[in-house]
Amino acid sequence: MSSDEKCIQTVRGLSVDIVQKANSGHPGMPLGCAPFAHVLWSDVMKYSPTEPQWFDRDRFVLSNGHGCALLYAMLHVTGYDLSMDDCKLFRQLDSKCPGHPESFVTAGVEVCTGPLGQGISNAVGLAMGEKHLAAVYNKPDHEIIDHCTYVICGDGCLQEGVASEASSLAGHWGLGKLLVIYDDNHITIDGDTNLSFTEDVTKRYEAYGWHTITIEVPGWEDAKGSCNVGPLREAIKAAKAVTDKPSMIKVRTMIGVGAPNAGSHSVHGAPLGKNMEATKKALGLNPEKTFDVEDDVYAHYDNKAAGKTLVEEWNAKMAKYTSAFPAESAELNRRIAGGLPTDWKEKFPTYEDGTQKATRQYSQDCLKAMGGFPEMVGGSADLAPSNLTEPGGGDSGDFQKGTPSGRYVRFGIREHGMAAICNGLAAHGGFLPYCATFFNFMGYALGASRLSALSRFRVLYIMTHDSIGLGEDGPTHQPVEMGISMRAMPNMNTWRPADGRETVASYQSAIENMHTPSTLCFSRQKVPCLVGSSVENALKGGYVLSTHGGDKPELVIVSTGTEVCICVEAAVKLAAAGKCVSIVSMPCTEIFDAQDKAYKMSVFPAGIPVMAVEAWAAHGWERYSHTQLCMRGYGASGPLKSVYEKFGFTPDIISAESEKVISFYKGKPVTHLMDGPDMFQAVYKH
Amino acid sequence: MSSDEKCIQTVRGLSVDIVQKANSGHPGMPLGCAPFAHVLWSDVMKYSPTEPQWFDRDRFVLSNGHGCALLYAMLHVTGYDLSMDDCKLFRQLDSKCPGHPESFVTAGVEVCTGPLGQGISNAVGLAMGEKHLAAVYNKPDHEIIDHCTYVICGDGCLQEGVASEASSLAGHWGLGKLLVIYDDNHITIDGDTNLSFTEDVTKRYEAYGWHTITIEVPGWEDAKGSCNVGPLREAIKAAKAVTDKPSMIKVRTMIGVGAPNAGSHSVHGAPLGKNMEATKKALGLNPEKTFDVEDDVYAHYDNKAAGKTLVEEWNAKMAKYTSAFPAESAELNRRIAGGLPTDWKEKFPTYEDGTQKATRQYSQDCLKAMGGFPEMVGGSADLAPSNLTEPGGGDSGDFQKGTPSGRYVRFGIREHGMAAICNGLAAHGGFLPYCATFFNFMGYALGASRLSALSRFRVLYIMTHDSIGLGEDGPTHQPVEMGISMRAMPNMNTWRPADGRETVASYQSAIENMHTPSTLCFSRQKVPCLVGSSVENALKGGYVLSTHGGDKPELVIVSTGTEVCICVEAAVKLAAAGKCVSIVSMPCTEIFDAQDKAYKMSVFPAGIPVMAVEAWAAHGWERYSHTQLCMRGYGASGPLKSVYEKFGFTPDIISAESEKVISFYKGKPVTHLMDGPDMFQAVYKH
Repeated sequence: MSSDEKCIQTVRGLSVDIVQKANSGHPGMPLGCAPFAHVLWSDVMKYSPTEPQWFDRDRFVLSNGHGCALLYAMLHVTGYDLSMDDCKLFRQLDSKCPGHPESFVTAGVEVCTGPLGQGISNAVGLAMGEKHLAAVYNKPDHEIIDHCTYVICGDGCLQEGVASEASSLAGHWGLGKLLVIYDDNHITIDGDTNLSFTEDVTKRYEAYGWHTITIEVPGWEDAKGSCNVGPLREAIKAAKAVTDKPSMIKVRTMIGVGAPNAGSHSVHGAPLGKNMEATKKALGLNPEKTFDVEDDVYAHYDNKAAGKTLVEEWNAKMAKYTSAFPAESAELNRRIAGGLPTDWKEKFPTYEDGTQKATRQYSQDCLKAMGGFPEMVGGSADLAPSNLTEPGGGDSGDFQKGTPSGRYVRFGIREHGMAAICNGLAAHGGFLPYCATFFNFMGYALGASRLSALSRFRVLYIMTHDSIGLGEDGPTHQPVEMGISMRAMPNMNTWRPADGRETVASYQSAIENMHTPSTLCFSRQKVPCLVGSSVENALKGGYVLSTHGGDKPELVIVSTGTEVCICVEAAVKLAAAGKCVSIVSMPCTEIFDAQDKAYKMSVFPAGIPVMAVEAWAAHGWERYSHTQLCMRGYGASGPLKSVYEKFGFTPDIISAESEKVISFYKGKPVTHLMDGPDMFQAVYKH
Repeated sequence: MSSDEKCIQTVRGLSVDIVQKANSGHPGMPLGCAPFAHVLWSDVMKYSPTEPQWFDRDRFVLSNGHGCALLYAMLHVTGYDLSMDDCKLFRQLDSKCPGHPESFVTAGVEVCTGPLGQGISNAVGLAMGEKHLAAVYNKPDHEIIDHCTYVICGDGCLQEGVASEASSLAGHWGLGKLLVIYDDNHITIDGDTNLSFTEDVTKRYEAYGWHTITIEVPGWEDAKGSCNVGPLREAIKAAKAVTDKPSMIKVRTMIGVGAPNAGSHSVHGAPLGKNMEATKKALGLNPEKTFDVEDDVYAHYDNKAAGKTLVEEWNAKMAKYTSAFPAESAELNRRIAGGLPTDWKEKFPTYEDGTQKATRQYSQDCLKAMGGFPEMVGGSADLAPSNLTEPGGGDSGDFQKGTPSGRYVRFGIREHGMAAICNGLAAHGGFLPYCATFFNFMGYALGASRLSALSRFRVLYIMTHDSIGLGEDGPTHQPVEMGISMRAMPNMNTWRPADGRETVASYQSAIENMHTPSTLCFSRQKVPCLVGSSVENALKGGYVLSTHGGDKPELVIVSTGTEVCICVEAAVKLAAAGKCVSIVSMPCTEIFDAQDKAYKMSVFPAGIPVMAVEAWAAHGWERYSHTQLCMRGYGASGPLKSVYEKFGFTPDIISAESEKVISFYKGKPVTHLMDGPDMFQAVYKH
């Protein structure tokens, strides 16, 4: 048995043992793709298992994340902090080997994969990040940023629209250091790919501007023959020689090779069980043994020493770079460490009471103020003039194939790909990625934005045209429920600022929360800077903006965004009619929820009914309010004023409703909604 | 001026007047694409303006829906129920000409477009529907189903992943009667398409299996030259001659042709304003006149008489068909009318108390029972064996290129395209479309499922693996917030049945609600059929399942799905400890919300605290409950039992929490949450 073969069969054996012990998981892909992993980790990738965060490492993404038994096996044999005991806890609660790769759990895992199409799209962001940083920081004879991004992916990822979007951009940007190995195994869960996937994949990728290579090696359909990795090594070499295009190497493989049910969908997602013995025999392994890695295999893969050397060499390069370019080095090191620019908060604008702008314009002011932050890389899904994310004060230039040092990203009309690419930038490190579209089209990107939140990636989602207030474009463009989706998403802060100061707070919060993405919702229409608003108060998520008609409120109105100023007008009317009402502005419910109980009870005092007013669906407002004036259906196409009037968001209607609420609750018990029992809570690693 | 030219320039003039009068909208696309519309409505499409729902009409989809001034102009001049006064109310509240096309508002509009990528994907569903019905109902010499689907789309739609997914399927299925005219104008909102979209689009479509034609006519860059529609007529003829592949005709156009700022993004999305006069002159029109259509132009386009003849001819064909094939004709006519099969409810399964199945298995039973409904066409995004949507009792066969009469659809791993295609099937008429995936990946399809709801399309979303209960696959696959997203979406019913009877109710409700899509959430894990559950009660959305420990409950526990049976166990424990607790099962909050107040107050009696228990995020439960035992973060990878224990969903924890809640509220006022003031509500056409 050749060394290649022994190593590959050992990894296969370990992978299927991992799945078997868990009695859950996917053996088919590890059996089929072990040769890819073997070549990548043995001969191709540069990495240091003891310093998994080494900045100039090659990035590896297992896009078909269900095959992660293979990834855990490789991390174990190459020397990462993943013991054989860890491998034996695959898919058990709180183990280092969860059912799909989780970047915040396992050293050596770059991104969370499993949701198909995301990994390859994240990889586009990883490769983009490298290209940009290399362009910004490398100097002649100082190639301090120089790494590749490798992906293994299957049919599933290539059918997903998000991958199409990101791949088109990868071709457009000419990401020559991105290499995808496509596991063309002809099998999906339903059966043969002929059932639903008969397109010419490599032709499509060529249309995107990729370089493609197809490998079909005789013998690869059996366990032994598939250890003939020479053609793959050659293909990788050829792919790396093409530096102006991303590369795809399509390899005809056999899912579950070695197993009696190889080549069938039955080997995809269930432990081998009674087929284990036959499989081990076909692999040339001893069926009596499990979790068995012989010393020579460990010796082959162990990359601890070699990795350490790589890191030391790079540190030496960095030391020279630091001598020659101290400012650049300091900046890069700050970015790598995730620190913020000195005095960054001082750059934000301040506003006089009564300033009139759309919150998207206040947002533009903030983006301009942050224009000099080199880590701010992002853009819009072809809505720069509407989202107001176009390059302004920063003169950052476009990130394009020929100008990779540019920081403004033209994502095209590809919301899902955009968000997934931003996740890749966040995963790469050194970035504060942001992306923008109309808020309603956050719904196109939800698959990726959820992964920002789960993965703890600080991505800024700048979402303008945040409600029915956009007017004429009508209900196809008017979000009413999207805000609820974002608020319900764990570890995603959802901001809807009422004015300029709250907008500043939203950006400051989004930037400071290093492990939480934020969705910043901004208006198309103008609102005044409000008497009583402040950055400091807004950073508490919710606060008493003002009280009208005395100091003993009979009603609290809680509101957000563009509706707050209308509620203030209503309160002024009510005060004139002898009612006392206080206005709570609540730009971020998640951050308000995190305040202590005493503060929350001070904002919503005992015994006073609360009415929520927001031009979004009511769901969730019942947490803070006894009644709601919210959207109960979709919006409508029409000028802003007529639309707001139709749905009740005018001072007249709000004041009339307020009177109704005050009289309804007069003499009735009013539960203090902030004062419930402390309930059982368990949170998974967040 | 030729007749073609006069007609085209008149339509252009009318379109830009429509936008100008609204002082809002998009003139660039109508100017550029008017020749397409002219040829389609004059020479190509079969339709009857006075019978816009005629079943065998050709379908037209304006995928770049922002250009709808052109569509409204065409509907007006050809004789649809859309007067010049209607045109003048473009983008005004409650007009027939909303800011983007709305199928439920305007006769002649097939689908809601505007959200890019959806229209072309809906068109795949429309063409699929035709192909299927033709295969099922046509007989030799009786071609009663024979129509085409025409699409105009721009760069935006072709960049979106949803269009990639649907287009790949269109090629796979060989939808020869689908024809897309691609408005290749080189401009998006950000500027030249070179900024972000440099792929070879026709090559990509060829890779999908499409037939493509490229037209670049000298002179098309000016107002007059672009009226030379001969090459387009020829291309359409050539495209229609290819019957085994969908066709794309790419036409190099000039956005805003005729306007001084033609060819620039500034002509895309703002009224012409001061450029109006010059534009009208360039078009050869009198700038003094607005909304001006001369009699000969009306005469050219007027299709009322010709359309009536077409319908009469078809009716005659149908009469012959009915004589020859009375059973088929009756069935087809029932489907066209949207009626349900006779005695359809009787086909559903019944269950004994204690039957143990996963709700996805109860769902499978229902799907099998409905297997004989010929209008049930749908499938899964490559998860047939997990979603349990595989062909069963119905023996419906696969819908494939060679077997278009099959009813089971292999969508591949394309959730967003799948949902958009189902919208197309619903829009076509004659179908009860359904689609399936893991519930968490509903997030990939949200852009399309929102349009099911807005468009009032009865699409069934069969979503299995509905919570952390899926166990080992972990948080990347465990929905915790998706249910909240769906509940917050107007006109979408979200079901989470607790057992077999509630599952039957969910299907019955989904089928009976002709203008509302439903999301049916099913479990991977087994649950018993519960004592006290019934189809009838479940159809009220929420009901008292059982009361334990007496008949004067101290606490109401409201729960859904797989948590209900755990709550029952908890209540039994509590009863043993001398507490009286009632259990409310709430499989569909939206339907419960629609019940009358008296019923709701009977389910949640005054003065009794309510605790909600659900393995989803808490948002929205505050509407019904004073406190919640819900998910406060993401789930975790592990065996079901350990995961449920970690997050508190066990009889022990629920009973302990219940005791805590009872003692917390003892002696405190408890607001009756169902008894608030009646608030202002306005709903737009729903």
